[in-house]
Amino acid sequence: MAGFALFGVVVGILGVLYAVYLARWVLRQDPGNEKMRFISQAIATGARAYLFRQYKTLAVLLAVLAVLILLTIDLPRGIYGLTTLGFVIGALGSMLAGYLGMYVTTRSASRVAQAAATGGMGRALLVSWRAGAVMGLSLAGIALLLISGFYLVFKAVTEEDWAVPLVALGFGASLVTLFMRVGGGIYTKAADLGADLVGKVEAGIPEDDPRNPGVIADNVGDNVGDVAGMAADVYESYIVTVTAAIFLAAILGLQAQYIEMIILFATLALVATFVGVNLLKTSGVKHPLSSISTAIYATIALSVLLFFAGSFLLGLETWRALALAVATSLGALVAPVIVKITDYYTSYNYGPVRRIAEQAKISPATVIITGYGVGLMSAIPVIAVIIAVLGVSYAIGFYAVPVTVFGDYSRYLAGIFGTAMASVGLLVVAGIIITADSYGPVSDNANGVVEMAGLPENVREVTDVLDSVGNTTKATTKGYAIASAALAALVLFIALIFEIVHAAAKIKGMGMLSILDNSLKSLQVINPSVLIGAFIGVSLVYFFTSRTLEAVGRTAMEIVEEIRRQFREKPGILEWKEQPDYARVVDIATRRALGEFLVPGLAAIIVPLLTGLLLGWNALAGLIMGAIVAGVPRALLMANAGGAWDNAKKYVELQGLKKTEMHKAAVIGDTVGDPFKDTSGPSLNPLIKVLNTLSVVFAYAIVFTNIALGIYPFGLLPLS
Amino acid sequence: MAGFALFGVVVGILGVLYAVYLARWVLRQDPGNEKMRFISQAIATGARAYLFRQYKTLAVLLAVLAVLILLTIDLPRGIYGLTTLGFVIGALGSMLAGYLGMYVTTRSASRVAQAAATGGMGRALLVSWRAGAVMGLSLAGIALLLISGFYLVFKAVTEEDWAVPLVALGFGASLVTLFMRVGGGIYTKAADLGADLVGKVEAGIPEDDPRNPGVIADNVGDNVGDVAGMAADVYESYIVTVTAAIFLAAILGLQAQYIEMIILFATLALVATFVGVNLLKTSGVKHPLSSISTAIYATIALSVLLFFAGSFLLGLETWRALALAVATSLGALVAPVIVKITDYYTSYNYGPVRRIAEQAKISPATVIITGYGVGLMSAIPVIAVIIAVLGVSYAIGFYAVPVTVFGDYSRYLAGIFGTAMASVGLLVVAGIIITADSYGPVSDNANGVVEMAGLPENVREVTDVLDSVGNTTKATTKGYAIASAALAALVLFIALIFEIVHAAAKIKGMGMLSILDNSLKSLQVINPSVLIGAFIGVSLVYFFTSRTLEAVGRTAMEIVEEIRRQFREKPGILEWKEQPDYARVVDIATRRALGEFLVPGLAAIIVPLLTGLLLGWNALAGLIMGAIVAGVPRALLMANAGGAWDNAKKYVELQGLKKTEMHKAAVIGDTVGDPFKDTSGPSLNPLIKVLNTLSVVFAYAIVFTNIALGIYPFGLLPLS
Repeated sequence: MAGFALFGVVVGILGVLYAVYLARWVLRQDPGNEKMRFISQAIATGARAYLFRQYKTLAVLLAVLAVLILLTIDLPRGIYGLTTLGFVIGALGSMLAGYLGMYVTTRSASRVAQAAATGGMGRALLVSWRAGAVMGLSLAGIALLLISGFYLVFKAVTEEDWAVPLVALGFGASLVTLFMRVGGGIYTKAADLGADLVGKVEAGIPEDDPRNPGVIADNVGDNVGDVAGMAADVYESYIVTVTAAIFLAAILGLQAQYIEMIILFATLALVATFVGVNLLKTSGVKHPLSSISTAIYATIALSVLLFFAGSFLLGLETWRALALAVATSLGALVAPVIVKITDYYTSYNYGPVRRIAEQAKISPATVIITGYGVGLMSAIPVIAVIIAVLGVSYAIGFYAVPVTVFGDYSRYLAGIFGTAMASVGLLVVAGIIITADSYGPVSDNANGVVEMAGLPENVREVTDVLDSVGNTTKATTKGYAIASAALAALVLFIALIFEIVHAAAKIKGMGMLSILDNSLKSLQVINPSVLIGAFIGVSLVYFFTSRTLEAVGRTAMEIVEEIRRQFREKPGILEWKEQPDYARVVDIATRRALGEFLVPGLAAIIVPLLTGLLLGWNALAGLIMGAIVAGVPRALLMANAGGAWDNAKKYVELQGLKKTEMHKAAVIGDTVGDPFKDTSGPSLNPLIKVLNTLSVVFAYAIVFTNIALGIYPFGLLPLS
Repeated sequence: MAGFALFGVVVGILGVLYAVYLARWVLRQDPGNEKMRFISQAIATGARAYLFRQYKTLAVLLAVLAVLILLTIDLPRGIYGLTTLGFVIGALGSMLAGYLGMYVTTRSASRVAQAAATGGMGRALLVSWRAGAVMGLSLAGIALLLISGFYLVFKAVTEEDWAVPLVALGFGASLVTLFMRVGGGIYTKAADLGADLVGKVEAGIPEDDPRNPGVIADNVGDNVGDVAGMAADVYESYIVTVTAAIFLAAILGLQAQYIEMIILFATLALVATFVGVNLLKTSGVKHPLSSISTAIYATIALSVLLFFAGSFLLGLETWRALALAVATSLGALVAPVIVKITDYYTSYNYGPVRRIAEQAKISPATVIITGYGVGLMSAIPVIAVIIAVLGVSYAIGFYAVPVTVFGDYSRYLAGIFGTAMASVGLLVVAGIIITADSYGPVSDNANGVVEMAGLPENVREVTDVLDSVGNTTKATTKGYAIASAALAALVLFIALIFEIVHAAAKIKGMGMLSILDNSLKSLQVINPSVLIGAFIGVSLVYFFTSRTLEAVGRTAMEIVEEIRRQFREKPGILEWKEQPDYARVVDIATRRALGEFLVPGLAAIIVPLLTGLLLGWNALAGLIMGAIVAGVPRALLMANAGGAWDNAKKYVELQGLKKTEMHKAAVIGDTVGDPFKDTSGPSLNPLIKVLNTLSVVFAYAIVFTNIALGIYPFGLLPLS
């Protein structure tokens, strides 16, 4: 019955090969004139330098954690270093994803600019879309390959203990992503803010003007933050969601076919993506957004068809397989719904953003207040969708999944496998979503190249359109990423409890069922341990958000001072007579971003570990619940408020009100929104998943310590 | 054993009499010249008009709810309308508290102004402090009187079912407070914002300038928002906390002495407050803040002494009584700790606020970002204190409280009674805290009278000092109010579960213990019902915050337009030649605030009821937990960020940087912070408690419906 896992390996490899083919096609395009190549080169060099320094810092931390996992998990459980291996490979995969994203985007930008200059909109769209597809296909391909490959390998090595190492793959991936999100997010927004504040506001020169000493750092930031960060994020979501579902199936004692189903559906979705990326209409296109939407919808529709077709291949009772295909499709169909909701709250075609723009007539303060209000409100319909999916998919699982090993609890636990399939459905369309998302920064960078290289106005018009469509796909992808993180985290959270029970049963040599009975009682919401844990979880989210927000302000301040210094000491820069020192700004941003990313990242590791070890595993469960319940709406608030402020500013500009007081007020909103939507907000996704995966990986060590030290403070009933 | 309850009744009456005595003393002071009296009169008239219109709107809603409670609770349970009575009296008490606050403040303002003119700092401080004490003593007195009186009456009527009607007292109080907080908060900040935006920013006239048509509305707002709102808030916290502790004692089956202990400690604290209000040093005072702090600390120290002395009177085993005196004192001592933390994050003597001011050099956007970051961070130490109190007091209760009726669970449940005593300790010092808090708006209003009546500069200097000290006491009271709300909500939340079990046992005619066993299992955090409920709870907090924030923006916009219109159509106003139309602005603010306060208020009633009835009682428990876990830190974030922005602006002004770009940036931060700290933030306190008290009151109806309809969707185990 390992057939579908092998199928996954093969299609994963095909995905990577397809990406290589597209990459070669993109690289064959004309990279433009010398100036354009020079600019691209400078951005690529800065981005690579940042990523490598970041990876070097991370390498030390990862090595320490790998040794810790080896010593506290693999050796005591006697599973041959598999967990350590999973962790390391997962982490390396995230690094590779980030690097790939950066590589493709920096190479493509000048080529898209040149395509816009020589071939117009259609050609430029094609080149940037295919550059995006390189990312989408390679990330989905690598993720699928790793999961199905490791599933086969781990199962071959140990029939019993292969599931935790698989989650370790997710832990490595999400941990590296967390650091990349934080570091890259601080870099990109501090550089953006610094360059804008001195360039646009003080010196009155346009965005991306080559006289601005911060302009290269700003473009580097787009690559290390938006591109490398988002690439790692979606890769990590994919790994965590699919491994969580497999892990849950294993721990619920389901037949192998259910695990095969997860891998099969993920594989079929990638097949659908192969078709989908080719469905983009490019010739004679006026509104690239509708072309892109069509390609996405077609991919989702095809995926759903394949889920139903594939459900017959599994050798399960037909009605059970069909029911789970429905649950999975539900997840896949959620993607466009969330895209619509996000669009409503962040596009200037609808009321909310116009309301913000309207307040710009009064004052910047009311722009902030109203935008914050819109952000808060925007979280509610997305959460309603998450609740609905959770409820319906749980009901499907309740009836359709045959769990038997947990006595009276079995059917109630089966429900959550339905939710796991829905989260898989949401995630497996990641290939096409990341294609549309990666297309954004490519166009953004191309736009920068056009401006800096001084290409004619009509070229700028083309890349402007592509860029603004890219902003929309970027904003909607965020909502999608948060929703998928929420579902994955919920599934993993429930799986964690069973891993804890499993570990306790093993350590005490008792049956799972009797331990489960007691554990569930001590996990109820009125247990002070759980409540204390929940407050710690919310505090962690607050700490994390606060640190990342303030880091942007601090770093931007240093960049502002450096740019002001250059303008002051080299007055010739503004008159095009002197060359600004781009490298110094790049260096400051790099140094500061890496100085700031350690504390919040380490807190995400140390706080849950200490809570679990010292306050007990039920406090840890409370912590995770608190972090999910507070973190998901906060991520939505920050992403959507940021997007709404951004577009309120654009709406004011569209009305020809640039350089007015009203525009100034709108710009302040946009600037506040930048770190909301691109630094703090996106970091919350990997944070939630790091807490979960870390807890699953270290569950054995935590339970062992709890029992050894007799620590169950305030626990309603001790774990025994 | 009803002795201590009678003692409570007597001391409660003494408190009210003492307040009457002080009120007469204040009213005997010279109310100043005719202009001062005219201004006071205008403010008083506007405030009374607003309050009466608000109460009229509320009366309809309260009547509907009273009938609902009568039909669904009192009649089916056969308890003679006691719950309805409790609800109505609690609600009327809140209205009275608000009215009293408004009455005292508006009468005192011109008298404090006159005292500053004739007697200097010491005299002005004495008058404003005694005006504050009228509030502090009468509110604490009324609350104590109601609780101990109703306890005696209810117990005399029904030996068995008196506890829920006591909580209904809290439900009525918190519901009215919720509406007063929302309506008053919108009124005060919209008027403030509107008056400032046109007056200070556009017309360049100072704050409280009589030429500004919004100036009376602004001062009315201080009274209906800050004064009436905060008075109702603390009154409500007192009622809810003490009744929650009594309710918990009853439901845990504790001996009557434990209930007597609660009332005794509350009574002793009021006795301590009688002494404390007289300890204010006023002659030769340079720094009123340290005088006020001394009076507060002395009251707390005396209360703690009395707790220990009183613990010997209860006829309990000495070690148990002493242990609970320790738990109660812990709560009382928390108050100054929280005041210190709040001070650190919101005063310009420390790093955080200076960091915000520093960012004003760069841009308003970085002021907002950094201030928001400070607000987020400030929540963490307060939550740490809440966690510590919860943990330690739980441990005390675990060992010292003899619960026996819940079998194996008994000791674990006893713990929470320790926490209940800590929350009582935190609350019973409310009398002195509200005195210090009410003193603030009195000085603020006096300051306005001085400005509007054109009194000399040296008088303004005195009231300026008093006003700025008032800002500090106001800010720190908020932190205190939130922490007490959090502890009260946690206690009530746990009591709620037992009321549900109790109701189920009664309806099904089964023993509590067997129902409890099942209920706890279905209440664990991995139950999808609980998780769905938690997400609904967070969404409700978001909805509430968003609506109140945006309401301020919308209402301010109308006020801005009206003021602009008056300046435009009557150009003589600015040259002192024409009289502005104050009443029109007051009317707009009243109408709009009352138009905006219904939707969020109704949501706080309807959402939990529907969740409980349709998704089941465990989803309702999840909702409350979600609202507490998300609402408490959010309230802290909003209160402290607002306070920090306010003082960052003052810090910039202190450096003589008024009218600079830097000052402008700081003012924008302050303006954003206004609705954060005075509208949305403070509304979250009563919101959390309304959810709790409402659920306790309607628990019987909810459980009955759940059982009748067979509704336990996704519940791990049905309630049976």
